[in-house]
Amino acid sequence: MAGAEIERLIQALARLPGLGPRSGRRAALALLAKRESLLRPLAEALAAADRTVRPCAACGNLDSTDPCAICADPKRDASLLCVVEGVAEVWALERAGAFRGRYHVLGGLLSPLDGIGPEDLNISALVARAAAPAVVEVILALSATVDGQTTAHYVAERLAGSGVAVTRLAHGVPVGGELDYLDDGTLTAALKARQKL
Amino acid sequence: MAGAEIERLIQALARLPGLGPRSGRRAALALLAKRESLLRPLAEALAAADRTVRPCAACGNLDSTDPCAICADPKRDASLLCVVEGVAEVWALERAGAFRGRYHVLGGLLSPLDGIGPEDLNISALVARAAAPAVVEVILALSATVDGQTTAHYVAERLAGSGVAVTRLAHGVPVGGELDYLDDGTLTAALKARQKL
Repeated sequence: MAGAEIERLIQALARLPGLGPRSGRRAALALLAKRESLLRPLAEALAAADRTVRPCAACGNLDSTDPCAICADPKRDASLLCVVEGVAEVWALERAGAFRGRYHVLGGLLSPLDGIGPEDLNISALVARAAAPAVVEVILALSATVDGQTTAHYVAERLAGSGVAVTRLAHGVPVGGELDYLDDGTLTAALKARQKL
Repeated sequence: MAGAEIERLIQALARLPGLGPRSGRRAALALLAKRESLLRPLAEALAAADRTVRPCAACGNLDSTDPCAICADPKRDASLLCVVEGVAEVWALERAGAFRGRYHVLGGLLSPLDGIGPEDLNISALVARAAAPAVVEVILALSATVDGQTTAHYVAERLAGSGVAVTRLAHGVPVGGELDYLDDGTLTAALKARQKL
């Protein structure tokens, strides 16, 4: 159909999450139509990110500095470690702006079906970090899915005896959520954990 | 939030059609996680496309050769010119595989509201091409929108007196379409252009 170079670009774009063959074609045409404002900035951003971005040796977060900006920030509370599945969750919590401690990125969740065991995740480094005297609490901020909760239980077990408090995020009604549309599990959890007004 | 290089990559991705800030973040993480299979192939495909892809001097189609593969193909019928808005429409017609002539890409549609006049489109070159003795018919394959039909009328007027037959695509019920969901205009057009079984 189109030339080999255009086909190659469409296929590279179509492999991105959220894009497919149709949106890959649309993106390729937009890139070729706006080379100065779209194509070249994207090509340069890809090269720069490939060159500079590395996982932080301390927490596993991605940044162009190692240790990452969060680990290097002396104003962050070193007594709190927030355990997350991946970098996307670090970004989500940072956008919320509700956490001022440091993170620990597991790099996935335990999943026997997908063959992901404890040795595939960044858990031993977490146990070592949690043993530091400065660390008081480890918050397990993992998804409320089967894999997320399996991982949370396993990590909590590995941290037992280390002397740190191990906590998890609250379950309940999402802010802005309508009760009518909530599943039974969430309603039951929200009722159990009800709080005094 | 994330480092400057990651932010720059997210913003370059978020500007692509069909992506926004959220899917830009998702794509950036996927690219950084799979550098060998995603990031570098995309970077190389962008560079190769930027280097080689040019508009065809004859028809305006994008290709890594000039004239493009369609104009250069001696098996394509030189007596038929199909006028389309852009390269996306060339690709759509080529996927359908129903047309064996050559194309002429206008590079947009007349749109007084957006300040797009005849001199902004590839119309004079079309008039010159249509004057070649080999050309018998010019098919106006333009969208059935106000801008598309305005452009079709204008182009037809410019071609009047050139001796070529000027045709347009049929209006009617889309294949697979349910009558119940069709608009009045389409139903009226389909009824007027009814055909003997």
